[in-house]
Amino acid sequence: MALTDSAFRKLQKIVGKSSCSRKKEDLVCYAYDATAQSYLPDAVCFPGNTKEVSTILSLANQEGFFVIPRGSGSGMTGGSLAVSGGVILVMARFSRILEIDKGNLIAHVEPGVVTGRFHRAVEKEGLFYPPDPASSEFATLGGNMAECAGGPRAVKYGVTRDYVLGLEAVLATGEIIHTGVQTTKGVVGYDLTRLLIGSEGTLGIITQMTLRLLPLPEAVRAMTAVFDKLETAAETVSEVIRRGIIPRTIEFMDNASIRCAESRLKIGLPVEAEALLLIEVDGKVDETDVIIKQLRTVCMSMGAKNIKIADTKEEADNLWKARKAISPALYQFAPDKINEDIVVPRSKIPDMVRKINSLKEETGLIMVSFGHAGDGNIHFNIMLDKKNKTELKKAEYAIDILFDYTLELGGTISGEHGVGITKSAYIEKEIGSVELNLMKKIKKVFDPKGILNPGKIFPS
Amino acid sequence: MALTDSAFRKLQKIVGKSSCSRKKEDLVCYAYDATAQSYLPDAVCFPGNTKEVSTILSLANQEGFFVIPRGSGSGMTGGSLAVSGGVILVMARFSRILEIDKGNLIAHVEPGVVTGRFHRAVEKEGLFYPPDPASSEFATLGGNMAECAGGPRAVKYGVTRDYVLGLEAVLATGEIIHTGVQTTKGVVGYDLTRLLIGSEGTLGIITQMTLRLLPLPEAVRAMTAVFDKLETAAETVSEVIRRGIIPRTIEFMDNASIRCAESRLKIGLPVEAEALLLIEVDGKVDETDVIIKQLRTVCMSMGAKNIKIADTKEEADNLWKARKAISPALYQFAPDKINEDIVVPRSKIPDMVRKINSLKEETGLIMVSFGHAGDGNIHFNIMLDKKNKTELKKAEYAIDILFDYTLELGGTISGEHGVGITKSAYIEKEIGSVELNLMKKIKKVFDPKGILNPGKIFPS
Repeated sequence: MALTDSAFRKLQKIVGKSSCSRKKEDLVCYAYDATAQSYLPDAVCFPGNTKEVSTILSLANQEGFFVIPRGSGSGMTGGSLAVSGGVILVMARFSRILEIDKGNLIAHVEPGVVTGRFHRAVEKEGLFYPPDPASSEFATLGGNMAECAGGPRAVKYGVTRDYVLGLEAVLATGEIIHTGVQTTKGVVGYDLTRLLIGSEGTLGIITQMTLRLLPLPEAVRAMTAVFDKLETAAETVSEVIRRGIIPRTIEFMDNASIRCAESRLKIGLPVEAEALLLIEVDGKVDETDVIIKQLRTVCMSMGAKNIKIADTKEEADNLWKARKAISPALYQFAPDKINEDIVVPRSKIPDMVRKINSLKEETGLIMVSFGHAGDGNIHFNIMLDKKNKTELKKAEYAIDILFDYTLELGGTISGEHGVGITKSAYIEKEIGSVELNLMKKIKKVFDPKGILNPGKIFPS
Repeated sequence: MALTDSAFRKLQKIVGKSSCSRKKEDLVCYAYDATAQSYLPDAVCFPGNTKEVSTILSLANQEGFFVIPRGSGSGMTGGSLAVSGGVILVMARFSRILEIDKGNLIAHVEPGVVTGRFHRAVEKEGLFYPPDPASSEFATLGGNMAECAGGPRAVKYGVTRDYVLGLEAVLATGEIIHTGVQTTKGVVGYDLTRLLIGSEGTLGIITQMTLRLLPLPEAVRAMTAVFDKLETAAETVSEVIRRGIIPRTIEFMDNASIRCAESRLKIGLPVEAEALLLIEVDGKVDETDVIIKQLRTVCMSMGAKNIKIADTKEEADNLWKARKAISPALYQFAPDKINEDIVVPRSKIPDMVRKINSLKEETGLIMVSFGHAGDGNIHFNIMLDKKNKTELKKAEYAIDILFDYTLELGGTISGEHGVGITKSAYIEKEIGSVELNLMKKIKKVFDPKGILNPGKIFPS
């Protein structure tokens, strides 16, 4: 399946010479993603419109070379890596926000639009696009679609899937399809839209999206609650929901996360605390005032040691800076990171916390947990030196146990990062053989020759 | 594909003699649905658990007889009709609410549970399941899943699809699958859950569901606004949303609908009005007070002639009684009803209203429109005598034009009723041949021999 010289020349003809390269210095720039793994593609192409994507794919389907769609390459599981060579299709030129339709609360956008830019554009119109992955300042909406990105606001607002009404996509055959509708309702035929969402670029390449918007909440308030036991923090999360309060985010950080963020930012985080909850509520001004007070009461009654309500936007922004600083700051502990993205039913977070603590003791590894406690989504990190085989083995052992326990608790081994290459070896823990077989057959329907993003999701 | 005597005896063995019949008097009871069409099945079976469904399907797959799943038979497009004979599988015995989990805001339920019963059960726990089709007092949750039911609250809360986290289903081969997760997040493999939702019983038979719940809103307030022009009412709907107010329902009735409801209920509806909006808001008590006042201001400024805010629950209930009385009361106009379920982007409702008015004038037919204006979903009814061939021809002409115009406005020809048999002849207006071909291939993956609910969705 190598890219022939003649196929490369045809690619250059389709997109123009300046938008197609196989120079090593260009290839290197599109060989990596957030997994820190690297695979050199055979070529990199920057198509400028749907027709070019279609022509490229129909060429690939004829000639038999692989095509791997790519947004910003910020994925955590290798979804945009050319693991078997092939042509990387960088969707950066699909960067137009085509329409923001206030009367119908929808937007038509292209997949190369960076999520944060889209947030600001709709907010300027008094509108709101809730999905907000931590990578929103560099990840693209197209990548968000491919992975079904989540983020902290899912506890109240759901995930990417809940905000996509319709798609334009190109199949492996080069055929262009239109799925879904422009309205909340629509039940004509099978739901191809949501079949494409989260399919990690293995079923088609998304070239346009119709997204659902909400009115921008009038006010947002943030607070932190400090706990001297991680379990107490975890129990507080459940209690908040049980009382019928749905904040827009309930993030948690364990002690290692707090130290990490503080060492980087020096903003006076409580480095002695075992756990910190960062809670954000939104709605009408009066409403948020009332809910923040209710939350203070709940947190106090559950045993919070210290509660701080952000008075200004700056204070709130600082709290978020701390939360977002954790992941990159983790490398102070060790050169390598194994990053997992498990989800358990919210009420099971205390059980999971106990299990992580026992694994930490048993293995002696550096483990850091933080994440979206409101929806049960825990980003669990093992910091290690992968060259140290003993450490690596222990880490693999810990992850195996952790995944089994996640599933035992009724959870899932990937909440928002996808399967890609890093979790494909584990997919059979969660998905039964009959279901996996259905998925493989669906893949075959969409991509009979297997040219689209090979080596992802399915175990080899 | 007729059911042989020996296959019937095997069926009786699987579910027990008392749960399987081919007596005509039994068959007649399961031959109809809300389309008022009737097809006698070869047998009717009442399986009691997933294993029985699985055994029945694997038998059907071997012997080659058709199986048609059925809830309460309240579908509007013929989804549960045995159009080519076969065995009707009545899911009524799957009637258990297995768990309502307050801490995780989920419920595990069986498909035979009547939607209204489920509403009351979760409301007793202070929880809320928003999807609320007009048929909720007799339709089952399983049927709601199969059709992706909507209802009036979709404008704020979305549709059935948005409240399903995971499913247990039986494939045509008899294999039992589990899809999805128990949490908001979960991205392991393709989204089989939403592929099954809205697939109208053609891909598998759902035997258990994990549903997402919300906290029950503290207060609900209802109001009506009367307009002397239908277009003004339609424009008011858009204006409400444009101002960032999202009521939980915005229903509209045209003059014929108002007269219909009044003739049945005699509750003093404004029979001279050209249009009536029934708006409902929910949230905290203070919040709903504020929003109701805002809504009054918007409606007045748009030209409403009369506004009435329900002071008591009884008053609000009466308004809903009126809304729900329309559909059955329509038969006072004529013996037959052609019922369509179009959706247009909310801002296009005035255009659609103008088109309907012009079609009414052109054809002289009795047309009645009402529905979920908040999400652009219009239930458009032509009342006629189908034996009158001239009327029938005119009606078919009107529907053809209406569907084309719906699609021209960016809408869909079925918002919440599915395709079934009554819309399958029109599906190619909305779904392109490439997309339809994908759907047919997906059907083949799930049901290689085509034994599950034949004759639905796809044009023959």
